[in-house]
Amino acid sequence: MSASLGELAVRFGCELRGDPDLRVEHVAPLSSAGPDALAFLANPRYRSQLAQTRAGAIVLAPAHAGDTTRPVLIAANPYATYARMASVLYPAPVAAAGVHPTAWIAPLAQVAGDAHVGAHVSIGNGSRVGARAVIGPGCVIEEGVQIDADVRLVARVVVCRGTHIGARTIVQPGAVIGAEGFGFAPERGTWLKVPQVGNVRIGADVEIGSNTTIDRGAIEDTVIEEGVKLDNQIQIGHNVRIGAHTAMAACVGVSGSVTIGKRCQIGGAVGIVGHLSICDDVAVTGLTMVSHSITEPGVYSSGLPAIAAADWRRAVARLHRLDRMAGRLAALERQLGKERDD
Amino acid sequence: MSASLGELAVRFGCELRGDPDLRVEHVAPLSSAGPDALAFLANPRYRSQLAQTRAGAIVLAPAHAGDTTRPVLIAANPYATYARMASVLYPAPVAAAGVHPTAWIAPLAQVAGDAHVGAHVSIGNGSRVGARAVIGPGCVIEEGVQIDADVRLVARVVVCRGTHIGARTIVQPGAVIGAEGFGFAPERGTWLKVPQVGNVRIGADVEIGSNTTIDRGAIEDTVIEEGVKLDNQIQIGHNVRIGAHTAMAACVGVSGSVTIGKRCQIGGAVGIVGHLSICDDVAVTGLTMVSHSITEPGVYSSGLPAIAAADWRRAVARLHRLDRMAGRLAALERQLGKERDD
Amino acid sequence: MSASLGELAVRFGCELRGDPDLRVEHVAPLSSAGPDALAFLANPRYRSQLAQTRAGAIVLAPAHAGDTTRPVLIAANPYATYARMASVLYPAPVAAAGVHPTAWIAPLAQVAGDAHVGAHVSIGNGSRVGARAVIGPGCVIEEGVQIDADVRLVARVVVCRGTHIGARTIVQPGAVIGAEGFGFAPERGTWLKVPQVGNVRIGADVEIGSNTTIDRGAIEDTVIEEGVKLDNQIQIGHNVRIGAHTAMAACVGVSGSVTIGKRCQIGGAVGIVGHLSICDDVAVTGLTMVSHSITEPGVYSSGLPAIAAADWRRAVARLHRLDRMAGRLAALERQLGKERDD
Repeated sequence: MSASLGELAVRFGCELRGDPDLRVEHVAPLSSAGPDALAFLANPRYRSQLAQTRAGAIVLAPAHAGDTTRPVLIAANPYATYARMASVLYPAPVAAAGVHPTAWIAPLAQVAGDAHVGAHVSIGNGSRVGARAVIGPGCVIEEGVQIDADVRLVARVVVCRGTHIGARTIVQPGAVIGAEGFGFAPERGTWLKVPQVGNVRIGADVEIGSNTTIDRGAIEDTVIEEGVKLDNQIQIGHNVRIGAHTAMAACVGVSGSVTIGKRCQIGGAVGIVGHLSICDDVAVTGLTMVSHSITEPGVYSSGLPAIAAADWRRAVARLHRLDRMAGRLAALERQLGKERDD
Repeated sequence: MSASLGELAVRFGCELRGDPDLRVEHVAPLSSAGPDALAFLANPRYRSQLAQTRAGAIVLAPAHAGDTTRPVLIAANPYATYARMASVLYPAPVAAAGVHPTAWIAPLAQVAGDAHVGAHVSIGNGSRVGARAVIGPGCVIEEGVQIDADVRLVARVVVCRGTHIGARTIVQPGAVIGAEGFGFAPERGTWLKVPQVGNVRIGADVEIGSNTTIDRGAIEDTVIEEGVKLDNQIQIGHNVRIGAHTAMAACVGVSGSVTIGKRCQIGGAVGIVGHLSICDDVAVTGLTMVSHSITEPGVYSSGLPAIAAADWRRAVARLHRLDRMAGRLAALERQLGKERDD
Repeated sequence: MSASLGELAVRFGCELRGDPDLRVEHVAPLSSAGPDALAFLANPRYRSQLAQTRAGAIVLAPAHAGDTTRPVLIAANPYATYARMASVLYPAPVAAAGVHPTAWIAPLAQVAGDAHVGAHVSIGNGSRVGARAVIGPGCVIEEGVQIDADVRLVARVVVCRGTHIGARTIVQPGAVIGAEGFGFAPERGTWLKVPQVGNVRIGADVEIGSNTTIDRGAIEDTVIEEGVKLDNQIQIGHNVRIGAHTAMAACVGVSGSVTIGKRCQIGGAVGIVGHLSICDDVAVTGLTMVSHSITEPGVYSSGLPAIAAADWRRAVARLHRLDRMAGRLAALERQLGKERDD
């Protein structure tokens, strides 16, 4: 698709500085954009590229409008405005309504007439697929699953019995929703399986990344509220509850029975210990271990930045001997008649 | 299903305090259970809920039997007893015997007459599926695989050539068993693939979580002994051996040629460096790096708890300068005529 | 297969000390090898096993040739030479050319006549599968995908629209290539999806592990150069570029827009923060967080080795109070009239 700068400005309420009849055909980064490309500036670190860019038009904030001689589309939130304009240039592929001949739908399943069911999909009894939903190739939908309107399961997603997926939610390939989690009772040195009888409830407008796993509840349901965004390879344990519009980067592990508030931002590879809670509006930086409940909004960390290996080995050796170092310090303080403050 | 307290008490050898004719229909947590629900108390932290619960009956230990006026089922191991009772209220769905019309079974594969083979399953030549085994939708079983009686592959599991899966083992969706691991020989700045010719042997009563991967052996087999429980998204490298009844939480990475003993408990997101061994009865807490062999039973850690990001940045800066701090301390000790003890 | 020591020595240019007519049938470790087995010594830690081994022949370096009375094949790079000999004893299974009756190929897809397409595979319009390529059971290939000659997708791999996979590349089961990554613009407390319009380009001779995910580019392509080896359960974010012959162990997470150089070695479970770059020839040890760009070749670390949990708790408490400890040290220095050096 292509669009004129005039159309884009009007449709998305931007101030245009430039010829409204100019057209852009695709998007590109400032650094490599040509005259037929739409670019954007959201991260000020790239501001210096404004001077040299050859982009056909640039979506940017008022503060930067003067930094380039190219046509600009001025927006309060350039990244969001860019996202909407890109959706015009790259309309989402529409999947034709109907059921692929290789798919298998159980007799007691219901699939909306305008839904798409792809190759080698299986849908179990009692499951319902809503209007315009897209069930991509290789998906497995067990029994009693409810998939609301406009949901998109991209490919090879497994949705286990009794799961409910809210409208417009997108699930990327390889995700597993509603499998039995890690519930075992110790008994005489062995582990006895505990029936996992809860379900998974996923709200509307959620996105779930590739190969992410969300376990069904042990007793009550695992709940992902509306607007939550989960990246790839995330593990959500049983009975977890994630509040609306919380975003989680890839490789996060959330243990069972954790409650996470609304609008939290969890960095990559964070680990969250079981049975604790995190309040609304908390940010956790990457590779942090959350081992106590967090009751105050703010930013929390415990990730260690890489340094040269030899320096790191020395630091670790010191860290393991910190107790002795503290003792030596206290001894000097005593010798000098200082009040110990520790 | 429903059951009377009397039946449950007799069948599972509990002392019942309450009316044996009362019936429970489902399970629920103490906090939300109604008169038709069975609840349990295993974790003393929830003891305070006993006073207010409206549960139809509570499975608990003798020590807590006096803390509620509701009917109680007294058991030495309440969690295990609850697990058994829940299995009565929620019998596992039985998969009908037979092969789904969309499944494909190679001419030289053998499938027991009472096994279940689901939609879009493929089974390669020389593979055998035992009595009452359930091969769920979308599973791929390559050549020469042996699947023993009562195994359940939930859905979309890949089992590569030559793997052996012991009786009653459960594999959750998306798991990959027996793929080729990371075996490359460095040669003039590039990597030469080393044939991975070992298999995977999985014992009886094992459970393997969603999207967990277990690589085949490079030369000898990768071995998971009986009763091992692996959570989701765990990576087991080639030639690893895991001892009986060891349990591993989600997102653990075990490098190649590691040997782990029996009855170990490995916390979430632990990383274990290659070619080392961990003895029986070791516990490793979450997000710990095991970089040396462990020869003594006990609990081991190196995970860092989250704190406020600003405080953490200061602590990290100090950590990176610990060597200098130690030097300053030693200098003071010399000045004061102290024997250095470090 | 079996081979005579003479054949192996000639074919792979080794010096043979022993009877050229002796034959080996399979491979085994030094410790358990019998007279019909080929073994090798690459890691000097196993050198002591040379004295007792019963192997039919051992591939080793000149320096070790004198340490055993068994037949030896002397090679400059014993591990690489072993790998080549093992490929003779264990020839890769050849998949018969042709399309499985349960596979579905869109009318406008092109599949080479000598390619293999397995059970329940689907291939979308505009996709091309090259000569001798093997598309294993359950793979999903979307539209407009280019798969070059001799590629092997083992099983249940998802390759999303527009991806290009270079010749001889191997992809293990469960991998997802080209799915939409984590691109969301914050807007009034919610997240707006940003179209992900770039593709994935994978070079020749790459290997991608089980359940690894590689996101498509947000604007420009995600690029994996030739000879890169990625282990299992790795996450590669959008717009990442990985240089030729870099190797990554399992469970690594690479955030979006990271550039990694050539010939790097990234240890297991390393996390790399977004928008930074790592130069050529960098090694990062396991469980390290890379949070700044690396511009000098060398070895970098921040992983913490496990110790006894009680000792670790003390060390952590001290670490969180390091600032105070430093203050106390500075106070003593002032009292003793020392120049603060920190």
